[in-house]
Amino acid sequence: MSVFKTESTITTFGGKLLKLSHQSKQTQTKMDLNVYLPKTYEKSAKKTVPVLIYLSGLTCTPNNASEKAYWQPHADRYGFAIVFPDTSPRGANVEGEDDSWDHGTGAGFYVDATTDKYKNNYRMYSYVHEEIQPLLQDEFENLNFENVSITGHSMGGYGALSGFLQNPGKYKSVSAFSPISNPIKAQWGEKNFGAYLGDDKSAWAKYDPTELLAKYDGPTPEILIHVGKGDPFYYRDYQLLPENFYEASKGTKFGGKVNLNLVDGFDHSYYFISSFTADHAKHHAKYLDLI
Amino acid sequence: MSVFKTESTITTFGGKLLKLSHQSKQTQTKMDLNVYLPKTYEKSAKKTVPVLIYLSGLTCTPNNASEKAYWQPHADRYGFAIVFPDTSPRGANVEGEDDSWDHGTGAGFYVDATTDKYKNNYRMYSYVHEEIQPLLQDEFENLNFENVSITGHSMGGYGALSGFLQNPGKYKSVSAFSPISNPIKAQWGEKNFGAYLGDDKSAWAKYDPTELLAKYDGPTPEILIHVGKGDPFYYRDYQLLPENFYEASKGTKFGGKVNLNLVDGFDHSYYFISSFTADHAKHHAKYLDLI
Repeated sequence: MSVFKTESTITTFGGKLLKLSHQSKQTQTKMDLNVYLPKTYEKSAKKTVPVLIYLSGLTCTPNNASEKAYWQPHADRYGFAIVFPDTSPRGANVEGEDDSWDHGTGAGFYVDATTDKYKNNYRMYSYVHEEIQPLLQDEFENLNFENVSITGHSMGGYGALSGFLQNPGKYKSVSAFSPISNPIKAQWGEKNFGAYLGDDKSAWAKYDPTELLAKYDGPTPEILIHVGKGDPFYYRDYQLLPENFYEASKGTKFGGKVNLNLVDGFDHSYYFISSFTADHAKHHAKYLDLI
Repeated sequence: MSVFKTESTITTFGGKLLKLSHQSKQTQTKMDLNVYLPKTYEKSAKKTVPVLIYLSGLTCTPNNASEKAYWQPHADRYGFAIVFPDTSPRGANVEGEDDSWDHGTGAGFYVDATTDKYKNNYRMYSYVHEEIQPLLQDEFENLNFENVSITGHSMGGYGALSGFLQNPGKYKSVSAFSPISNPIKAQWGEKNFGAYLGDDKSAWAKYDPTELLAKYDGPTPEILIHVGKGDPFYYRDYQLLPENFYEASKGTKFGGKVNLNLVDGFDHSYYFISSFTADHAKHHAKYLDLI
C-alpha cells in the first residue's frame, strides 16, 4: 500500500502534477509534497526518468513554485521529473514556530535540528535527502533516483548547495536562484541556525555552503547561480552573499567553476525565478544525460 | 502629467511588468492595471509594438495572470505587449458587492450596468474597450493600440469574445480559455446580467457571444478556444457551453471558423491556462502581423 495520499492530480503542460501528502517519520507530521511527472513518464521503462529536486524559499509550500516557477515545459522538453518538497514541518506545535515569517513554520532551513525544542520535528535535512527519495522511488518505478539533481531558491538555494556539498556524488548537478550562500554570516542564518542547532557555531559550519567548499572532495560539475541585482535581500540586507561562495570556490577542487550571474534589475520573486528556469533546466539536463 | 501611478516596475523575462493604478472616470474608483512591455519595447519606434489585452476571470486581480499564465516569454518572442485589466471596480461601496465570490467585486462581467444600484460604478465594458486604451496609448508611445487583439479566461474569455463581436474591426483577433460562451443560458450569466442589466433579457443578449454571432458583420479571423474536459464548470455545471458558440457560428459569417479544442484532463486553473498560452500567443501574433 502506498505511503502517499494523492490529494489531486492536475493535468498541466504535457504531464501531470501530483499533489501528495504523507506521514513523515522524520518530522512526525503530515507533509505535503508535489511531483511533476513529465510527458515522457507514462511511456518510460523502469528507472529511466531522472529527477530534479526543487527546494523552495521562506514561507513557501510546494504549491508556490509549482504554479509560478515555470519548470514544467522545460521538464517536458528534456524529460525529467520535478519534486517540490515543503519548507518545514507544519503544525508541529513547537512553541514560537509561528511567531515570525522567517523562522519556524515555512523556514526549516533544511537542517536536522539538535536543540531540545526543535529536534523532534525540524529534520528537513534528513527529510529531503534521506526520507522522501526512497519513498518516491518505491511509488514511481519509472523515476530514477540514482540520476538526480538539485536546485532551489533563497533558503532553498542554500539548501540545494548545502545538500549537494554534504553528499558528494549523490547529486549529478546543483544550481541555485538567489541562494543564502554563506548563512553563518547573514542574519537569516544566525537566527535560524541558532534556534535549530544551538550556540556552537562549529555545528553551523557543516551546513554553510561557503564553509563546506573547502573540505569537499566529490565530483565537480559547474555550479550555476543567478542572483538579481535588484533584490533587496542581496544589495540591501546582505542575506545572500553569493560572492563569498564564488571567491571561496577558487581555492578548492571547484577551482572557481561557479557560474555566478548577477543579473540587472531582477528582484527576489517568482518573476525572477521563472525568467531563468529555462537556463537552469538546460544546465541540469546536461548533467542528467538528457542532452 | 501621467494619469497613471507606477506602483512597481518588475524586471521579468526579457522585459518589464509595470503595476499601474489610476482613477477611472468610468468606474469612479481607483483601478489597478498591469502592463507587460516586451524586450523589444525599448528599442522600438513610435507605435510599432502591438498589444494583446488579457481579461481575467472571476475573483482575479491583474496580478494572478501576470504571475501564473506565462504570457511573458511568448510576448518577448513575438514582440507584443500585454495589458491585464482588473475584473471589476473595487471599493465602490455598492451594497452586497462583496457578498459572494461570483458577483460584484471581482466579477464585473465586462458590462456597463444599467440598474440603479450598479450603473455608476460597474462600467467594465466602457472601461476596457473605451477608457484604458487611449490612456495607455498616451502613456506608452511605442505601443500601437490600432493593432490590438483580445483574449481572456472564463468570465474574461466571455469578455473577450463579447468585446470582439461588439466592436467589429477593432480587434485583429480573439481567443479564449474556458469562456462562458452563452451566459444567458448559464447560472453565472443569469445572476450577474440580472443584477447589472435588470430583468429585460433583450438587454442581456447584446453581451452574449453566442447571441452576438448572428448579427456580426465584421472581419472573421479564426477564433481559437481551449476548454478543459476536466473542468467542473464545463462538464458538471454547464457554465461554459462552448459548443453552443461553435454551433451558432456555423450559420454566420464565421462559417464555423471556430477552432474549439476540448482538451482531455485539463481543469479551469492557471495550470490549464499556462499550458496553452504558447498556442494563443502564436495565434494572435499571426493576426498582429508579427509572424
